[in-house]
Amino acid sequence: MIDFSKQRDIEQYFRTYTISHFAVSQDESKLVFNSNLDGKMNLWAMDLPHTYPYQICFEDQASDFVKFDPKGRYILTGFDNDGDENYQIYALPPDGGQPEPVITGENQEKYYYAHLSQDGERLYYVTSEDNPNFLNLRKRDLKTGEDELLRSGQDAANFIASVSPQEDSFVFVNAFSNTYQQAYVHINGDEFSLTPDPTKVHTVSDAVYTSNDVVYFLTNYESDFSYLATFHLKDQTFNKVLTLPNENMKELVDHQASNCLYLVTEKGVEDRLYEFRIDNQKYKSLSQPTAVIESLQVADSGNMYVLGRSATKPHNLFQCEDNSTEWIQLTENRALGVPEEDLVDPDVVTYQSFDGMSIEALFFKAKEDVANGYTVFWPHGGPQAAERKSFRALFQVILAKGYHIFAPNFRGSTGYGSEYVKMVEGDWGHGPRLDCVKGIEWLFDTGYSSPDKLLILGGSYGGYMSLLLAGRHPDLFKAVVDIFGPSDLLSFYYSVPEHWKPIMKIWLGEPEKDKERFVNDSPITYLDSMTNPMLVIQGANDPRVVKQESDQIVAALEEKGIDVEYIVLEDEGHGFSKKENEIQVYKKILEFFERHIEQ
Amino acid sequence: MIDFSKQRDIEQYFRTYTISHFAVSQDESKLVFNSNLDGKMNLWAMDLPHTYPYQICFEDQASDFVKFDPKGRYILTGFDNDGDENYQIYALPPDGGQPEPVITGENQEKYYYAHLSQDGERLYYVTSEDNPNFLNLRKRDLKTGEDELLRSGQDAANFIASVSPQEDSFVFVNAFSNTYQQAYVHINGDEFSLTPDPTKVHTVSDAVYTSNDVVYFLTNYESDFSYLATFHLKDQTFNKVLTLPNENMKELVDHQASNCLYLVTEKGVEDRLYEFRIDNQKYKSLSQPTAVIESLQVADSGNMYVLGRSATKPHNLFQCEDNSTEWIQLTENRALGVPEEDLVDPDVVTYQSFDGMSIEALFFKAKEDVANGYTVFWPHGGPQAAERKSFRALFQVILAKGYHIFAPNFRGSTGYGSEYVKMVEGDWGHGPRLDCVKGIEWLFDTGYSSPDKLLILGGSYGGYMSLLLAGRHPDLFKAVVDIFGPSDLLSFYYSVPEHWKPIMKIWLGEPEKDKERFVNDSPITYLDSMTNPMLVIQGANDPRVVKQESDQIVAALEEKGIDVEYIVLEDEGHGFSKKENEIQVYKKILEFFERHIEQ
Repeated sequence: MIDFSKQRDIEQYFRTYTISHFAVSQDESKLVFNSNLDGKMNLWAMDLPHTYPYQICFEDQASDFVKFDPKGRYILTGFDNDGDENYQIYALPPDGGQPEPVITGENQEKYYYAHLSQDGERLYYVTSEDNPNFLNLRKRDLKTGEDELLRSGQDAANFIASVSPQEDSFVFVNAFSNTYQQAYVHINGDEFSLTPDPTKVHTVSDAVYTSNDVVYFLTNYESDFSYLATFHLKDQTFNKVLTLPNENMKELVDHQASNCLYLVTEKGVEDRLYEFRIDNQKYKSLSQPTAVIESLQVADSGNMYVLGRSATKPHNLFQCEDNSTEWIQLTENRALGVPEEDLVDPDVVTYQSFDGMSIEALFFKAKEDVANGYTVFWPHGGPQAAERKSFRALFQVILAKGYHIFAPNFRGSTGYGSEYVKMVEGDWGHGPRLDCVKGIEWLFDTGYSSPDKLLILGGSYGGYMSLLLAGRHPDLFKAVVDIFGPSDLLSFYYSVPEHWKPIMKIWLGEPEKDKERFVNDSPITYLDSMTNPMLVIQGANDPRVVKQESDQIVAALEEKGIDVEYIVLEDEGHGFSKKENEIQVYKKILEFFERHIEQ
Repeated sequence: MIDFSKQRDIEQYFRTYTISHFAVSQDESKLVFNSNLDGKMNLWAMDLPHTYPYQICFEDQASDFVKFDPKGRYILTGFDNDGDENYQIYALPPDGGQPEPVITGENQEKYYYAHLSQDGERLYYVTSEDNPNFLNLRKRDLKTGEDELLRSGQDAANFIASVSPQEDSFVFVNAFSNTYQQAYVHINGDEFSLTPDPTKVHTVSDAVYTSNDVVYFLTNYESDFSYLATFHLKDQTFNKVLTLPNENMKELVDHQASNCLYLVTEKGVEDRLYEFRIDNQKYKSLSQPTAVIESLQVADSGNMYVLGRSATKPHNLFQCEDNSTEWIQLTENRALGVPEEDLVDPDVVTYQSFDGMSIEALFFKAKEDVANGYTVFWPHGGPQAAERKSFRALFQVILAKGYHIFAPNFRGSTGYGSEYVKMVEGDWGHGPRLDCVKGIEWLFDTGYSSPDKLLILGGSYGGYMSLLLAGRHPDLFKAVVDIFGPSDLLSFYYSVPEHWKPIMKIWLGEPEKDKERFVNDSPITYLDSMTNPMLVIQGANDPRVVKQESDQIVAALEEKGIDVEYIVLEDEGHGFSKKENEIQVYKKILEFFERHIEQ
């Protein structure tokens, strides 16, 4: 009979797509999501309960949010230009069409959506206009066009976290770094810290007003992990409400009708979902559709909607009816013709680092029938992020080609407490690098790999780490792929977006004061020992790691006669928004690996 | 507030897509359809009752059929190459993936699917291999690979219409022309005509075996319209079963469980749907989801599935549960952000032609607030086809730009009886052309248009007619667009696909015998009077109207210094399979019109 045993084409894995965010209308008649399902990022809608999607805009640009006008007159969204991340705010007709500019300006300016009033007529937003470093908080009356400055950021980039129901106060966050984010209530010109001492380093996120006088929020004030707390405006009191041991609360959603809050926590490489009753302060664990919950929305009806993914399941949307434990999958985003059981779910392994610290890593093992004996070492990006149980088409195709993948959550990674996250601050190239080296040694010691069987691949901070390993530990592996990684911390420091600059001091250090460390930790310092073949990939519009970072190291290596291949994507930023580009780049990476292993 | 009053972008209309055919698995758990929903033709599936679609192949090629293996082991389909219509037969894994060749050969050969045995192991097909003019009928045992010649076509191209349940007989059709198609039962080496006298000109289509000895089929034997008839194998008797006045039966579907047949008929510009009970020979009219029913499938359960469209609704799939009259729309193919009420539903008008014949036409009137006073005259393709109440993105965008559209069903069109259809045979350029001229005069007489307010646009035979009108009636209009229309009937006669050649004699005539008419009816004869600006569009791989047809007239006109623009699509055939090409071409047509009207 017909024989389907031939090897899958790698394109089958890349026929998955991104769903980056979504929103459900108040009456749950419409769900809108942002996806490159037809190859380019656009907004799509489904008229629930029907799930067949239709396109509602044709900008071919990434969107950063979707917000339904509560009265159904429009859908707000933000678009940037080919990945430059300068999002500006537009409105779409409710059934889709051409976006109408709502809050827009010069190309290089940013306008971030913050809040829409309950009547859909006052829009709170954050903008780089007139304050590129620290941003301004503003309110626009969509009816009259009147635009009011609410607060001008100083010392730190500020953002609106929440606006009170009566719109007489709002919570804003001062972001000094990823690990130091103060929050204040701004009311009648006064500003009160939500936490007792804003000068202590901590974070606040996800503030919600459960009434005009009570703010619930997540903070790790005086704690290693974020917990649920309240601030009462009347007496300006702070209270710790709910702590979950070793779980970091990352998302807080309010559901007024049931007087409940919904909590998403991160626990290492997975997430957890909880319901918290405000009246009796009890919480319970809820069933969840995927290992990782990217975002959660709870409709007035109590129905929950989740955008989630797992190691073997790409981004999908799910619905759970109120009081049910069963999640219905609304979308069917899947590797083309590859059943989930043919994909690899990683093992979670731990190993000891140079200083005794325990490091957790995801170890994806290629299935026995295809394993080729090689391992790809993947230092994740961020660095204040983590490699988690999230589907990556690139990982699954690398695995299908027979390579194992080892992805350590080196110091600086999230999900293991704030002390751990902070360890990368002011130390980009020492501790995290040695964690990586120890991970590599673990692979050698356990017999899974050896220096002639190891390849390095990373993007963003992971690209930086790949370059640094290439320069400082060239004998540990055979070849290296850097995707938009900084090559020189000094030039990187000066080229990041304006509103990042305030946090750079804590995050990376000060170029003058820490000059020696900047030099020691910059890949470009180690050009002479970068002898392994290298592939460098860069988006021309990348606003975070500018093209210069890749240009300079490629030029230097070429001059030295090193085997270096350079791919620049003209219409991309820090990531791949166009499926065509993604497939092209990832095919090149696989070809590069194939060329540099002994077949 | 936000103002959405700005004119729609024409791209919004083109963000609709084609759904060309579909199939539902026996247990209705899966529906597969062929669509360019992500820009290129591919097969998509939905796991019913969920309707969110996922892609099951990535060939980026048109498919001509889908057939589920009854045992769920594979899905059969056919692919051509960039529109060359040389379809060959492949199998896909049930959840999609890479197609495995099943019945394939040299690039220029065709392999058409005909029938799959009930156990999914014997495949009946029709091929150009060894018999390019008349085709061969063959059977492949998918288990053993054994391949058997069942019948070799002679005199006329032959096709398998149906195979008996016990596979001891089959019905084949000899296609002498669109209006002369004999059908025979082939049993034990004998061949019996389904109709009493095969030498009388008539057609037979859609044969189904309701048992091993009874064939139901549609024929217009001794009638102007097709009706339902039976042939009993035992006594070789023909019986007329059901006639519907002025309706032409076009599709016949068997439903064994209920002992019913389902009938789709065409009545002028619309279709009708009926159920016919075999036991009591009664029929009833059924509700239908769209004006035009492209195809119908009835599942074992009795649930009906329809691919249909209307003037204001592009191709969509619908489901109607057994014994219900309510159709559920499974897909959401729609103009982006354009509600159906903003699209134009045509008026049906009739006018008298030069010889008193009554001609029906669709008259699409631009909405008053946009009407620009111009009319586009559209002679349809075929010519043995019709302009019906079917969504065309091009029409709706032309209408949105303010042009009326007038589309006459000139003599030769289907839907008005077989005598009417035959009138174009051996008369491509006289009667149908004068019907068009009379239609144009009707537009002038009624005041809707005038020679300086009329544009001509047509494709295939419609392109030929546009060219012919351009040459013979240049004073009736301002500018003309020809999409892959034959320019010289003589060269056209010799360049059609091999298996068309046998029907050309009836359809078009004989070049030697009818030489004067071939010359008289060829647009290229009238080069001297072709003075209107012209846009010519051609697919490089077109197997029906080869590129030479457009090349030669463009070259001749250019030599004469006429304003002629020529667009060749390298990766297309007779039609546009790639949305990008379609949008590009239609934008060019609109720009061409804009340039040649007085703004």
